[in-house]
Amino acid sequence: MIFIGIIGYGYWGPNIVRNFNTIEGAKVAAVCDKNPDALKKVNTAWPGIRTSTDCSEIISAEDIDAIAVVTPVFSHFEIAKKALQEGKHVFVEKPFTSTSDQAKELIELAARKNLTIMVDHTFLFSGAVRKIKELIDQEVLGNLYYFDSTRVNLGLFQHDINVIWDLAPHDLSIMDYLIKESPEAIVASGTSHLNGHEDVAYMACYFSNNMIAHINVNWLSPVKVRTTLIGGCKKMLVWNDLEADEKIKIYDKGAEAKTREGVYDLLISYRSGDMWVPKVDATEALKLEANYFVDCVTSGTAPINDGQAGMRVVQMLEAADRSLKKKGAMVYI
Amino acid sequence: MIFIGIIGYGYWGPNIVRNFNTIEGAKVAAVCDKNPDALKKVNTAWPGIRTSTDCSEIISAEDIDAIAVVTPVFSHFEIAKKALQEGKHVFVEKPFTSTSDQAKELIELAARKNLTIMVDHTFLFSGAVRKIKELIDQEVLGNLYYFDSTRVNLGLFQHDINVIWDLAPHDLSIMDYLIKESPEAIVASGTSHLNGHEDVAYMACYFSNNMIAHINVNWLSPVKVRTTLIGGCKKMLVWNDLEADEKIKIYDKGAEAKTREGVYDLLISYRSGDMWVPKVDATEALKLEANYFVDCVTSGTAPINDGQAGMRVVQMLEAADRSLKKKGAMVYI
Amino acid sequence: MIFIGIIGYGYWGPNIVRNFNTIEGAKVAAVCDKNPDALKKVNTAWPGIRTSTDCSEIISAEDIDAIAVVTPVFSHFEIAKKALQEGKHVFVEKPFTSTSDQAKELIELAARKNLTIMVDHTFLFSGAVRKIKELIDQEVLGNLYYFDSTRVNLGLFQHDINVIWDLAPHDLSIMDYLIKESPEAIVASGTSHLNGHEDVAYMACYFSNNMIAHINVNWLSPVKVRTTLIGGCKKMLVWNDLEADEKIKIYDKGAEAKTREGVYDLLISYRSGDMWVPKVDATEALKLEANYFVDCVTSGTAPINDGQAGMRVVQMLEAADRSLKKKGAMVYI
Amino acid sequence: MIFIGIIGYGYWGPNIVRNFNTIEGAKVAAVCDKNPDALKKVNTAWPGIRTSTDCSEIISAEDIDAIAVVTPVFSHFEIAKKALQEGKHVFVEKPFTSTSDQAKELIELAARKNLTIMVDHTFLFSGAVRKIKELIDQEVLGNLYYFDSTRVNLGLFQHDINVIWDLAPHDLSIMDYLIKESPEAIVASGTSHLNGHEDVAYMACYFSNNMIAHINVNWLSPVKVRTTLIGGCKKMLVWNDLEADEKIKIYDKGAEAKTREGVYDLLISYRSGDMWVPKVDATEALKLEANYFVDCVTSGTAPINDGQAGMRVVQMLEAADRSLKKKGAMVYI
Repeated sequence: MIFIGIIGYGYWGPNIVRNFNTIEGAKVAAVCDKNPDALKKVNTAWPGIRTSTDCSEIISAEDIDAIAVVTPVFSHFEIAKKALQEGKHVFVEKPFTSTSDQAKELIELAARKNLTIMVDHTFLFSGAVRKIKELIDQEVLGNLYYFDSTRVNLGLFQHDINVIWDLAPHDLSIMDYLIKESPEAIVASGTSHLNGHEDVAYMACYFSNNMIAHINVNWLSPVKVRTTLIGGCKKMLVWNDLEADEKIKIYDKGAEAKTREGVYDLLISYRSGDMWVPKVDATEALKLEANYFVDCVTSGTAPINDGQAGMRVVQMLEAADRSLKKKGAMVYI
Repeated sequence: MIFIGIIGYGYWGPNIVRNFNTIEGAKVAAVCDKNPDALKKVNTAWPGIRTSTDCSEIISAEDIDAIAVVTPVFSHFEIAKKALQEGKHVFVEKPFTSTSDQAKELIELAARKNLTIMVDHTFLFSGAVRKIKELIDQEVLGNLYYFDSTRVNLGLFQHDINVIWDLAPHDLSIMDYLIKESPEAIVASGTSHLNGHEDVAYMACYFSNNMIAHINVNWLSPVKVRTTLIGGCKKMLVWNDLEADEKIKIYDKGAEAKTREGVYDLLISYRSGDMWVPKVDATEALKLEANYFVDCVTSGTAPINDGQAGMRVVQMLEAADRSLKKKGAMVYI
Repeated sequence: MIFIGIIGYGYWGPNIVRNFNTIEGAKVAAVCDKNPDALKKVNTAWPGIRTSTDCSEIISAEDIDAIAVVTPVFSHFEIAKKALQEGKHVFVEKPFTSTSDQAKELIELAARKNLTIMVDHTFLFSGAVRKIKELIDQEVLGNLYYFDSTRVNLGLFQHDINVIWDLAPHDLSIMDYLIKESPEAIVASGTSHLNGHEDVAYMACYFSNNMIAHINVNWLSPVKVRTTLIGGCKKMLVWNDLEADEKIKIYDKGAEAKTREGVYDLLISYRSGDMWVPKVDATEALKLEANYFVDCVTSGTAPINDGQAGMRVVQMLEAADRSLKKKGAMVYI
Repeated sequence: MIFIGIIGYGYWGPNIVRNFNTIEGAKVAAVCDKNPDALKKVNTAWPGIRTSTDCSEIISAEDIDAIAVVTPVFSHFEIAKKALQEGKHVFVEKPFTSTSDQAKELIELAARKNLTIMVDHTFLFSGAVRKIKELIDQEVLGNLYYFDSTRVNLGLFQHDINVIWDLAPHDLSIMDYLIKESPEAIVASGTSHLNGHEDVAYMACYFSNNMIAHINVNWLSPVKVRTTLIGGCKKMLVWNDLEADEKIKIYDKGAEAKTREGVYDLLISYRSGDMWVPKVDATEALKLEANYFVDCVTSGTAPINDGQAGMRVVQMLEAADRSLKKKGAMVYI
């Protein structure tokens, strides 16, 4: 049984508590938040969990094995570092840290102390992403041409980060998981209209093998869109996460270049066949992830969403920020 | 009555012939194509129209007042120049020319000879774009935050141009028409997979007033998408051109930054009200444009889609190409 | 403060407990279910609520003011009757009772004892139905032509009732609320394929003023549909309850018959204008209904979803059953 | 080469002329319409086709092999009869005739004279219906539970027939083709609001094996719907004819009744797997049908959409009318 202390009970905290407290093998021992009103909600919903406004007390508590860091990004490093120093495993909200240097320091610290870091890349545990991973690994899609993701809606504006740091970690962590390689360079564009942080932004990620990834994030969209297109040379895929029942559509469509003797131009021929919607497991992603955290901590296995995965995402975010500042210049990672 | 000679009877030519031949005030006198099979189709469909494989014959024919250039881009300049030299008005397919220098030369030539140039930016005459223009001009949307357009489908790969030159002229000409200003700089990203021309590409256009435009074009998409989001400070709009009846949706949604005394962070408040789908005129855009061409030629008025408009679009395409070559560097126009 | 005893903790029970226990002015005092496993769930989720497998104990408990009957239909009458006899107000799941005679007996009993009956026609409290009611009452739609509702999905097959008794009470209670009149006659068709109860069925309801209502219910549909069309002489409306944000669409469309002098046939002219999607309140319907129950009990006001409303729905269901047995013959109510 | 005379050039006539005149093996020799304006359109579009306002001239013309009857229903019988008497094959618009007695007389006449009757059940030749036929015949769907079709839109009101006679022939002819058996009885409901003919109507068709078909037709719907659900014991299917690319969705979903020892109630278990969208041939249905007419006339083969098929549809329409008059009473065929 792993006993967990939760730091932060804001928007996402209740989901973390509910999941870690209802799976076998874990128990939420304590919740900390600086806001007493948040703690009142914990007391009502989970009378058995102790609460505190003093995080250091919980981080150092002897009856606690792991700390879940569910606070704003800027505080992740400090809290996670303290927790690792106290010998606790950590489960950290995405994005992992504010800088890749911080990420590196935490990874090294955890390695030295033989502790587990898991970054909450929840989507990796969704039925949709697991199914897409399976399709890519089994080479159903073939070599990939592009990964094109749109994640837009109205708000919620963050005070400390721009829309790329807020929304793109979802897409970047999914991309990092699905595609074995990492991008070599990043180009980002965007503007800010309301609070000085970019609220409309675009990221292009260049890969070695001519693959390109693109991410469109926007806090000022009147409609919510969560759509990812993945084009492969054998099949193409559309993932619409807002669809209740038909999240993934796999198209037997493609184009092929053919040379013809004596003809200079390449002839492009097209293929268009059936479409197929695989059944996708509907288990709550965070529940699977919570179970997986317990497994990784117990067995000492490195998670797929370990500190390295978290750091790779932070490196891409840093590159995007640098490109934004250089007005779209390509930034190598 | 304006008598028109059509050069080129490929994919788009039949629509040009049908529209110019069925409106009042114009008559298609001749069609030229190098491919005799194409001309056979003309003879069957329009027995009264004379045909020829020799374009210069038609361009210099005395009974012809105007030439419609419906050929691949690389030949626009040469044909249009010859036509203007022969004293004919010209109606040129989009994109206007292969370079902005060519565009400039044609504009000057037409001005000297007092002839009309119209570039076939067909979408400006669609019910949807006319309605959006009205909404913007009447300040229903308020100051614009962004213009975000996606135009993707499977093929048709072009042999001589990349996907930006093929598909983005639609979006750029619409953007140029709707927004009074022109972009100051452009950042483009893209890769090619099949025939050496970019087949997946993205363009960001920066405007002086913090507005950003973005265009996503792709020849390797399994699904056809034709969607433009336009965010304004008063209203936001989604135009889905594939919808039969509900092409434009106007959302009474927005976000506003408020300062509060003693509070450092800006408070962002959201507004979310009704949505409204205006009825959009369904008249064929090309028919209206053909009528407009006749009017402009007859009255000597400069069209909204004149050579200057055509040149602005070509300048943006050139900037995109330069940015692509510089791997995303911002290119000023 | 109203203290409530809940009888039945199956599919819907948890929602009833959660809502009645979290609003002001009410408290769930006890939950009864014959299944001890169900009660274990109550104990985990709501440690403060006492549980019992013996309903009569709860029904007669002195500290309880009202009984919510959340059991299968066949048991509603008996439980509700006992509760009324014990002087408790009752909140009864839909459909109210198995027969209209039972409904009448309960209504009379409650009247004699001055107690409140509320039938759980939850949809009346949804933002969508409240908005439609407003539109009809304010004569935005004009006189109604038809009410056409489709409510189909795969399962859940009920053991004791057919698909009309299972699904149509939603549509019938909504129809009864929206339309001031009651149908004069009903025609029903249907067949059964698996367990002897009709699993695919259709109901037409004839109203005095030429209005017709139609309800399509089906347990064997591969897709879930929750769509209601309401046609009025001034406006027409589509309510798609599965839409997240655009539940109600109001069309400025219509047809009108005109006579022309000397022409025998009526000329029908059509009107097609804008479409409008009003913002719909997203408050949980059951929460509003729970509050309303407390208000009605406290003030002694008759609810809109009182025993009479419940009885009218049961009468329509009985008529449908009779029509089914007579193979579609019209049954007058 | 079959020479064809077309009687009637209204809404559908131009399609008939275009298709019969562009396939190999047929030629439209003449078009007749009482309205001289209609004939002017023929002259413009098809200068080679002779026109007349006198139908009998065309029906008896020696150079004509077959007559296409594209007039309002009430005139089908008279024109087709005259054509058959003159030794011409006939291609008749749906519905075939105004009464089944008329249909019978035409069938007998054609048989005596060894002539072909084809009723224009165009949908049988659409890619979607051909694919569904294949799926049913290959027992992919298994035994059918139901066939549920919705065909609604705003107008066009007909002057001489109600909405069932106008729209349901599509569904009835498709149903008749897909399902080997014919319905035993029909129940219809409906009302009229504008011109005295039912404009909102519903038909239930009972088959011997517990299958039920239902057709929902409406001239007063603000939205256009063309959706058919077909439930089989092995697979279920949704055909949405308004979808551009994904017309047919096949669901691996179902329900099964299981008996358990000692348990009275049947246990229903559900199956829910992948969904599959087969590619559907996009050839114009009427073109295939025109070719098929030429083949049938040339070879003397009876068409799938022969007079018998036309008569079966008329019988169902007659039964629906009788049921409407009897206020929903079941009418046996």
